Amino acid sequence: MSSSDIFIGETIGTAILILLGGGVVAAVVLKASKARNAGWLAITFGWGFAVLTAVYTSAPLSGAHLNPAVTLGIAIKDGEWGDVPTYWAGQLLGAMIGATLVWLAYYGQFQAHLTDKEIVGGPGAQATTAKAVEAQEKGAGPVLGVFSTGPEIRHAVQNLATEIIGTFVLVIAVLTQGLNDEGNGLGTLGALITALVVVGIGLSLGGPTGYAINPARDLGPRIVHALLPLPNKGGSDWSYAWVPVAGPLIGGAIAAGVYKLAFV
Amino acid sequence: MSSSDIFIGETIGTAILILLGGGVVAAVVLKASKARNAGWLAITFGWGFAVLTAVYTSAPLSGAHLNPAVTLGIAIKDGEWGDVPTYWAGQLLGAMIGATLVWLAYYGQFQAHLTDKEIVGGPGAQATTAKAVEAQEKGAGPVLGVFSTGPEIRHAVQNLATEIIGTFVLVIAVLTQGLNDEGNGLGTLGALITALVVVGIGLSLGGPTGYAINPARDLGPRIVHALLPLPNKGGSDWSYAWVPVAGPLIGGAIAAGVYKLAFV
Amino acid sequence: MSSSDIFIGETIGTAILILLGGGVVAAVVLKASKARNAGWLAITFGWGFAVLTAVYTSAPLSGAHLNPAVTLGIAIKDGEWGDVPTYWAGQLLGAMIGATLVWLAYYGQFQAHLTDKEIVGGPGAQATTAKAVEAQEKGAGPVLGVFSTGPEIRHAVQNLATEIIGTFVLVIAVLTQGLNDEGNGLGTLGALITALVVVGIGLSLGGPTGYAINPARDLGPRIVHALLPLPNKGGSDWSYAWVPVAGPLIGGAIAAGVYKLAFV
Amino acid sequence: MSSSDIFIGETIGTAILILLGGGVVAAVVLKASKARNAGWLAITFGWGFAVLTAVYTSAPLSGAHLNPAVTLGIAIKDGEWGDVPTYWAGQLLGAMIGATLVWLAYYGQFQAHLTDKEIVGGPGAQATTAKAVEAQEKGAGPVLGVFSTGPEIRHAVQNLATEIIGTFVLVIAVLTQGLNDEGNGLGTLGALITALVVVGIGLSLGGPTGYAINPARDLGPRIVHALLPLPNKGGSDWSYAWVPVAGPLIGGAIAAGVYKLAFV
Repeated sequence: MSSSDIFIGETIGTAILILLGGGVVAAVVLKASKARNAGWLAITFGWGFAVLTAVYTSAPLSGAHLNPAVTLGIAIKDGEWGDVPTYWAGQLLGAMIGATLVWLAYYGQFQAHLTDKEIVGGPGAQATTAKAVEAQEKGAGPVLGVFSTGPEIRHAVQNLATEIIGTFVLVIAVLTQGLNDEGNGLGTLGALITALVVVGIGLSLGGPTGYAINPARDLGPRIVHALLPLPNKGGSDWSYAWVPVAGPLIGGAIAAGVYKLAFV
Repeated sequence: MSSSDIFIGETIGTAILILLGGGVVAAVVLKASKARNAGWLAITFGWGFAVLTAVYTSAPLSGAHLNPAVTLGIAIKDGEWGDVPTYWAGQLLGAMIGATLVWLAYYGQFQAHLTDKEIVGGPGAQATTAKAVEAQEKGAGPVLGVFSTGPEIRHAVQNLATEIIGTFVLVIAVLTQGLNDEGNGLGTLGALITALVVVGIGLSLGGPTGYAINPARDLGPRIVHALLPLPNKGGSDWSYAWVPVAGPLIGGAIAAGVYKLAFV
Repeated sequence: MSSSDIFIGETIGTAILILLGGGVVAAVVLKASKARNAGWLAITFGWGFAVLTAVYTSAPLSGAHLNPAVTLGIAIKDGEWGDVPTYWAGQLLGAMIGATLVWLAYYGQFQAHLTDKEIVGGPGAQATTAKAVEAQEKGAGPVLGVFSTGPEIRHAVQNLATEIIGTFVLVIAVLTQGLNDEGNGLGTLGALITALVVVGIGLSLGGPTGYAINPARDLGPRIVHALLPLPNKGGSDWSYAWVPVAGPLIGGAIAAGVYKLAFV
Repeated sequence: MSSSDIFIGETIGTAILILLGGGVVAAVVLKASKARNAGWLAITFGWGFAVLTAVYTSAPLSGAHLNPAVTLGIAIKDGEWGDVPTYWAGQLLGAMIGATLVWLAYYGQFQAHLTDKEIVGGPGAQATTAKAVEAQEKGAGPVLGVFSTGPEIRHAVQNLATEIIGTFVLVIAVLTQGLNDEGNGLGTLGALITALVVVGIGLSLGGPTGYAINPARDLGPRIVHALLPLPNKGGSDWSYAWVPVAGPLIGGAIAAGVYKLAFV
């Protein structure tokens, strides 16, 4: 693949991933949405089908990594690092575009939610610390949750461990795909399997931190949250921002190591 | 494909699409239905499996567009316009037949719902403006929601933007299918992927407007709503009818443009 | 296929179909079940994966019809009637075995449910007529719902129409499968598609009558309900029993007719 | 396959199975989880996608049995017993590793749940006997439910029967897979089908006992529950532990017998 195909494919694919992934959180938590309070199953299936659509669409151009931790795991596995910066740049840009499109698609809902005091935290809402609860009462917590993840219990070591474990599962599944599909790369069925694996990780390991399992998925939208002119939006929780970046990268690297030890 | 195969295939396929798609809304919102209040997940999966069944059934005859925006996107991509009127005519006729079959399958439920004052708005129900709320109290809002879409917040620009974005995602996924499946057209697995993409669009982008993402899906049933002898049915909300026609066509055209720029 | 393979395959397959299909209703409506009140989505997906498991398991032996209406539709399409009695006999016997296995797997739950006055009707429960409501208060309605279907609004013409429409969708999808899969018969992917089509029919057309769409699925378990020594079980609603037999057979025949007119 | 590949594959695969399977129960029942009270559908789909991820990842190494009852059924079918101890050892070790990882990923949630008196039993929680209810009030019941299964109504014969029936369905579906996929073994699509069959068994037959249908899935985590330093954890319910070991082995053996009689 050419560098421009990689960059364009990752940008389009990650934009679709975050548009649909952030979109389902907006759909479930914001006021004046038909999907309001549709629950955790809706969020996890929504993110899964976001992966499906994004992988399916971008696979012909870039192979559909859409996740710096996946790119890292594949680079470690193959020992090829030349395209890593291109992948990562496309992923971050795409995530920022996707988060902006969520804002556009749900513009009225964001306005209604942030300018009205009657807010009820839905699934995916940030919670539990006194500060977070206070912010949530003003609607800012759920809105940040549309963009970035946050922990239910703020404890750096456990939060990091949860993200490492979740990403390990994702990347080991992606890496073994070649063995199942005989080197066809990310084909149609592979996109579906990966999507359902992500639904599974969300259902099973999303409880404590909201399963970033992807540095671009968390950092890009957090930057957009900081930049957008949302009323009463509160802070972007930058003190937590390193966890969903570092955890997934560590998890992806461990998965590549286990793959090289056990599967080759 | 012959013109008659296209017309028959699109008519049968779109009829099944609207029968099952409108059917799931009827199942969830009408009184005296076993599925009442089954929620937004039921509606989005119901529409998705409607797409699956309709595509699977009509693909051998017409290639299963079932959506004027998909037909437009494919025409722009291929530069071939001769069959477009045949596709569109079959889609509109099929949508009208499907909406009529929903009425037949849920005849008693429609009667019970519209002649009883004790109505609770379920998911998919029209809402929020004073006029809509008043209509809903009489049961007319949910019944119109079985046929056509309506916005939670009535704002033409945002409503149009949401429909454009949702249809863009659908059509770009359909157009890249040929790249993933090596030109096999809409095969069995393609039908499944498309169905799950539509579930994803519903979950993620359906909150503001109810995701028409298909002009025939909205216009055909709206005409049927206007014609059917439903008691106390209220108006068919014609002032909104242009949005779910124009938005999807614009979204499909943009998807075709992006496809030609990035993927070819 | 030999007659004995057909009979054994249909018996095993339909037994699994009804074991899992009746089982999910038992899981959702009976007392002392972990799945109690899991809702309509659980019931529709449960029936769908019952179809998946049953088709997948019996396809190598009998081609996995598992439904007299499917057998009728295929016989009309192919003009071959010799194996029809063998298919039908296996289907009815299998359905009776499956219903008996549900009773075995949920033995304690049936006892707890029928001997306790504190009953709340869950999804799938029979309802609305004065007589049905009275029976339901005693727990008999939900228990009959584990075995057989019943309408929310008892109106023979509409009930029949709903079953005809639902079965038409099922059988037309099964008949077009050969066109999509190039004559491979019911393969692995075909089993999945058929299963999800059945989930879709349940979500979209199950509201009024509980979607029998299969004469053996309704009649076999109803016979078992009449025979089993369940305490306080009430009647088996034989006055309705002809609808879920006649409706599906008519729907399957119409589907075969449409198939021969439009697809050949 | 070499013995070391079998052992490593089964260990990794079963660890992923229990990590995600136990994880979804933790997500739904423990306090301070974003998925709390997500319901029975979340649990059954979570276990299903756990199977998908685990089978997909370990299939290239060991063929992905991940279940002593599956190994037993395949051994009976093929008459080859040499690798059985290796499979069983890897499965038990993997299950113990997986359960430990659940504890790590949900460490704070376990602490919050077990040290707080305000506990509400969610789906999957142990229940109904006076002793179980008392334990549940202290939070110990739901926590044991993260690790091992327990019956709603404690009756050894019925509990055993339910586990036998559920495992019979699983193993007969696994054994017929070779007939559907023409001897390709557990390929990509086979992993998906098996996963959805397990969702179906959970929805349909999970109500009475929580569907162990796998001796390693229940015994390994129960041992880990007994060893972990969880506060106020209560007993590990060893009096029930033989049922989810014996039932699945009997069910797997019966499935192999039926397979040899009917399908060969």
